[in-house]
Amino acid sequence: MKISIIKIGGNVIDFPEKLDEFLTLFAKFPGHKILVHGGGVMASRFGESMGVMPEMVDGRRITDKDTLDIVTMVYAGLINKNIVAKLQALKVNAIGMTGADGNLIRSIKRPVKGIDYGFVGDIQEINVSLIDTLLSTGLQPVVNAITHDKKGQLLNTNADSIASALATSLAVSHQVNLYFCFNKSGVLVDEKNENSIIPLINEDIYAELRKENVIHSGMIPKLDNAFEALKKGVNNVWIGKAENLLLAAKGKLSGTTIERNRYDLY
Amino acid sequence: MKISIIKIGGNVIDFPEKLDEFLTLFAKFPGHKILVHGGGVMASRFGESMGVMPEMVDGRRITDKDTLDIVTMVYAGLINKNIVAKLQALKVNAIGMTGADGNLIRSIKRPVKGIDYGFVGDIQEINVSLIDTLLSTGLQPVVNAITHDKKGQLLNTNADSIASALATSLAVSHQVNLYFCFNKSGVLVDEKNENSIIPLINEDIYAELRKENVIHSGMIPKLDNAFEALKKGVNNVWIGKAENLLLAAKGKLSGTTIERNRYDLY
Repeated sequence: MKISIIKIGGNVIDFPEKLDEFLTLFAKFPGHKILVHGGGVMASRFGESMGVMPEMVDGRRITDKDTLDIVTMVYAGLINKNIVAKLQALKVNAIGMTGADGNLIRSIKRPVKGIDYGFVGDIQEINVSLIDTLLSTGLQPVVNAITHDKKGQLLNTNADSIASALATSLAVSHQVNLYFCFNKSGVLVDEKNENSIIPLINEDIYAELRKENVIHSGMIPKLDNAFEALKKGVNNVWIGKAENLLLAAKGKLSGTTIERNRYDLY
Repeated sequence: MKISIIKIGGNVIDFPEKLDEFLTLFAKFPGHKILVHGGGVMASRFGESMGVMPEMVDGRRITDKDTLDIVTMVYAGLINKNIVAKLQALKVNAIGMTGADGNLIRSIKRPVKGIDYGFVGDIQEINVSLIDTLLSTGLQPVVNAITHDKKGQLLNTNADSIASALATSLAVSHQVNLYFCFNKSGVLVDEKNENSIIPLINEDIYAELRKENVIHSGMIPKLDNAFEALKKGVNNVWIGKAENLLLAAKGKLSGTTIERNRYDLY
């Protein structure tokens, strides 16, 4: 079957109006779909109100026991269940899940190499047959950034990594498109100009753009991940703003589509 | 199929060692099973640490917006996902759910009649076919006390009521046994003597025990609910301590079993 995996970040989740607007679009998004979310800013805010301050190293949260409890409450409880309830109202038969539910995503606690990230999970295995069952029953999974090690321990896991792992695992038996919603309109030629979107990037274009330093810093790991997903069989990867998701689904120009080289076109 | 619905309360959930011990028993519990939990004390504690004080009227929590957020985080996030992860480690393919997930339980916000309970849900409908699908896929639902109104609103719902509603809805097409774990060994002749358990109560025995004032106060609504469930087709209802659950499953004396009159026995 054809499956779309859509990842949203804090710039959608943290603003109730933007989230509602996005969920209305998501409800209209055609076909089987899986929503993936984290919710970092909200977790930090709740943590602070309980006296647990966020500790970040290189943009990654250090997850001690108290922080794990907070992200579990905020991601798997507050954010996930409100999204599910709102989607149900929009007639999407959403089912909220952590990686522990039905053993959807098994991770291992990240080994300590210099930095101890605490209860952070690196993904090991996706339960594809569970997703097949849910999707063919008409359920649309809403997956949050909590996974488990199958030994009783919950683990905080990067939501981008979850979206990529779901996409590559499902790509073995399905046609999968992966959508990353973020705070820019796509990959931009000029970071300050939201109209300077590069509509299509393939390996050749990517090599050129890196050589010319048009693509640099934070965009490199995003695109490396995208090409990694494509190499593992994902059909295409899209990066853009949540509000342009439906245009993307209709194949209209909006955001950046990342594809493998298609020499047959030349 | 044969389905057991097991409800645990704060006296299990609030003590990590007791919870672990219970989950080990639950894992050994034979056949299809659904675990139902709330988690009131833990929610109150987290609320207090965030400056939200619990407000109770007649033993029922008043659920304002902040309290709803807290119970959603604690029930659906912290407690539910830790239970699921621990059951997965015990080789139970648990899946944690609120009533919003897959539209499992639709409620309506309780109408204001004197007391405004806030975001509290009275159960309207159980999605039996979803449970059938999950159970026949080998998944064991772990259901917490959050439901929804199918209009986008989460609602705080009594966990005993959820267990009863699941039992009676499933009893239409399945053989259902309902187990309530609480802080006593069963219905006692002498409240202060845990050995004075009444092993079996039917309608005739219940009438006698009420007349003699052996059963009074808080036990009356529990037993009324039990008989209501039996009238709606539930096979039997058991009340006792969590640690005696396996004995109960094996039909051994432990706790109180509530059954309809069986005149064919006489």
